[in-house]
Amino acid sequence: MPVVGMVGGGQLARMTAAAAVGLGATFRVLAESANESAALVTHDVAVGSHLSLPDITAFAADCDVITFDHEHVPGPILAELESAGVLVRPGSGALRYTQDKLAMRQRLSELGIPCPRFAPVASLADVAAFVGGYGGASPRGMTEAGARYDGGFGHRALDPAGTWPVVPNAWPVVLKAVSGGYDGKGVWVCESTGEVEEVLAHGIPLMAEEFVPFKRELAALVARSPSGQGAAYPVVQTVQEDGICREVIAPAPGLNPDVAVAAEAMALKIAAELGVTGLLAVELFETGSGALLVNELAMRPHNSGHWTIEGARTSQFEQHLRAVLDLPLGSCAPPAGTFTVMANLLGGTDPDVFDRYIHVMAADPAVKVHFYGKGIRVGRKIGHVTIVGGPDDEVEAVRDRARRAASYLRWGVEDGD
Amino acid sequence: MPVVGMVGGGQLARMTAAAAVGLGATFRVLAESANESAALVTHDVAVGSHLSLPDITAFAADCDVITFDHEHVPGPILAELESAGVLVRPGSGALRYTQDKLAMRQRLSELGIPCPRFAPVASLADVAAFVGGYGGASPRGMTEAGARYDGGFGHRALDPAGTWPVVPNAWPVVLKAVSGGYDGKGVWVCESTGEVEEVLAHGIPLMAEEFVPFKRELAALVARSPSGQGAAYPVVQTVQEDGICREVIAPAPGLNPDVAVAAEAMALKIAAELGVTGLLAVELFETGSGALLVNELAMRPHNSGHWTIEGARTSQFEQHLRAVLDLPLGSCAPPAGTFTVMANLLGGTDPDVFDRYIHVMAADPAVKVHFYGKGIRVGRKIGHVTIVGGPDDEVEAVRDRARRAASYLRWGVEDGD
Repeated sequence: MPVVGMVGGGQLARMTAAAAVGLGATFRVLAESANESAALVTHDVAVGSHLSLPDITAFAADCDVITFDHEHVPGPILAELESAGVLVRPGSGALRYTQDKLAMRQRLSELGIPCPRFAPVASLADVAAFVGGYGGASPRGMTEAGARYDGGFGHRALDPAGTWPVVPNAWPVVLKAVSGGYDGKGVWVCESTGEVEEVLAHGIPLMAEEFVPFKRELAALVARSPSGQGAAYPVVQTVQEDGICREVIAPAPGLNPDVAVAAEAMALKIAAELGVTGLLAVELFETGSGALLVNELAMRPHNSGHWTIEGARTSQFEQHLRAVLDLPLGSCAPPAGTFTVMANLLGGTDPDVFDRYIHVMAADPAVKVHFYGKGIRVGRKIGHVTIVGGPDDEVEAVRDRARRAASYLRWGVEDGD
Repeated sequence: MPVVGMVGGGQLARMTAAAAVGLGATFRVLAESANESAALVTHDVAVGSHLSLPDITAFAADCDVITFDHEHVPGPILAELESAGVLVRPGSGALRYTQDKLAMRQRLSELGIPCPRFAPVASLADVAAFVGGYGGASPRGMTEAGARYDGGFGHRALDPAGTWPVVPNAWPVVLKAVSGGYDGKGVWVCESTGEVEEVLAHGIPLMAEEFVPFKRELAALVARSPSGQGAAYPVVQTVQEDGICREVIAPAPGLNPDVAVAAEAMALKIAAELGVTGLLAVELFETGSGALLVNELAMRPHNSGHWTIEGARTSQFEQHLRAVLDLPLGSCAPPAGTFTVMANLLGGTDPDVFDRYIHVMAADPAVKVHFYGKGIRVGRKIGHVTIVGGPDDEVEAVRDRARRAASYLRWGVEDGD
């Protein structure tokens, strides 16, 4: 069997290592340190930097194909590796669209994919021109990511096509770092010119986006192989707080089946047009009228797909391996009649999670806990819990069980957040 | 989290390593060589012999608890480890009953557990006394294990209690090595005194058992923790050929629910009475009248439980880890409405299984293949395939798909055996 190397030693690589065991693929990891999440459980670990061409080149020499736990390997390094004949999946041509949000928006717009309105901005005048005026009505404090998408704003109306007209003085406005952001970092919701000036003062390349008062967030996860085969998981609902994914419900409850199919088709189209190999996660806003707008892209296993380990016939981690190995893709379907809830487990203040773990196991034997082997820091993703529901289960009841388990593991109480 | 060490580097340890990733337990393996199945995928591998007290002692020094991939660590070594304060789970007191079949039969009989009639034998006279005469009517060739339990014999009638009267001249008779047998090895079905003499000539401790003309074979898999918690998986049907498990159907189709509950209760009783910690697999004969007799015991993850990776909320490998760590046990239930078929993958004559793997993936995307990373030898267990069925699937159709996949992987044709 071929050897797959994954650059990056986080929890995505860790779960991919477990998936490689059954698949029979030989799996290697390039980790920053021997204590990283994936390095703790992978048989064959190389220690090195994803920012170092020599480190990755040495790592790739013992692999048939390399892939990634994250999108942070610089484009020039990816291009050098490809020039040297290394099989890089996804390739630099695709990864570029996860590293440059402006390029992503421009490309998707060319393809006719619905996105929030956007423009590159370098000055307050640019932002004012984008928004349609200076000022901003509301005195809400600006929060990096925190206040970003907590919903509840409804001060503008979508047109029937689900796209946004330019509305004069349409504050708040979203500013984004063109590159380098993740988990809400690098995203600012600005209520006033003063807040915009604060962000401009960072001196980094920025773009403006309209603020979308979405009804909820969804994610479409698909896989694409170099041969061009595609496979789509059911569209899920994601629940974010403070810019961090807290919960995923698969499939998304109450989603119009036509919209679900359209979202899967859109994600497969993006994967094909951008030349993605491996997984592509498309984060979506569902607006009040039921229209979908693309928020972000990721080209790797994604937090919105952790539910697939228990909930789908082929986990996203095995699927990613199949895709980068150009093997036929596996079924994305959940067993008939089942649904799955995943809740992220964030670090609390007490590092001794093990004592609390025992109580969660005893309280709900059907909860599956996944730990990432990471040190505890407040708010850090240190694991997740999954519950598979059946025809006799209520989605809200299963969500409640998952939240209680995650809260207890974090704080030692079932309703800690 | 505590450190679990598993002695033995076969496929059971390999699949346990994968289960440890999510659980967050730190997992180590003591393998015979660096190329063994589990050694290829486990982060922390020690190379040494399970027959060496110094090797196991050194291994155990870095573990909080040790457990086993097989039952071949000699009892005196287990006792020495326990005397030295090593936490050994299951302990020597329980493992003894997997290493000495005569002791197992005697103990189960004392507990009132239904077993085939048995007796220690050291001579032809002993065997004749057990069988009720010399001779043997049928000229079938004797085969080690091969002809053992191929079914179809009905020349004696069970009494209503499901136990066997002593029937004069009740050939064939089963001879078993008291210790050291596995996968049909060490088991002989003898049709005549001549065949008995051949087996006696091996000069090993033997026992005789009545030949049971069973309707089918079942297995009851349970877990028991040191705290005394027990958990039972649904009873499964196993299909053996030539003494090797070929197929498992979970739950056992058409099994009388009262019989299933009784089998689970019996397995939990055996686990408790024998002081098992970890998993206990109880292999059973179902007779024509629906009565159950215990065939063999195993105290570890078992081939009859591989289906639980996809088919149950807690896999047998995670369950074993939970039990030996004295953590609360997980739910053994399959998601509602599902059933699972597992088919073992045996080696064929062509070592390049990968070429065939691609076709199996393409032909049936819902088949989950597990490879053990073992070299190909004809008849060797090199992996297994699993398919989870739902309410709309027919058991026989899913069995057929699993058999086709396993046959194609072995021989390159779908109906190879």
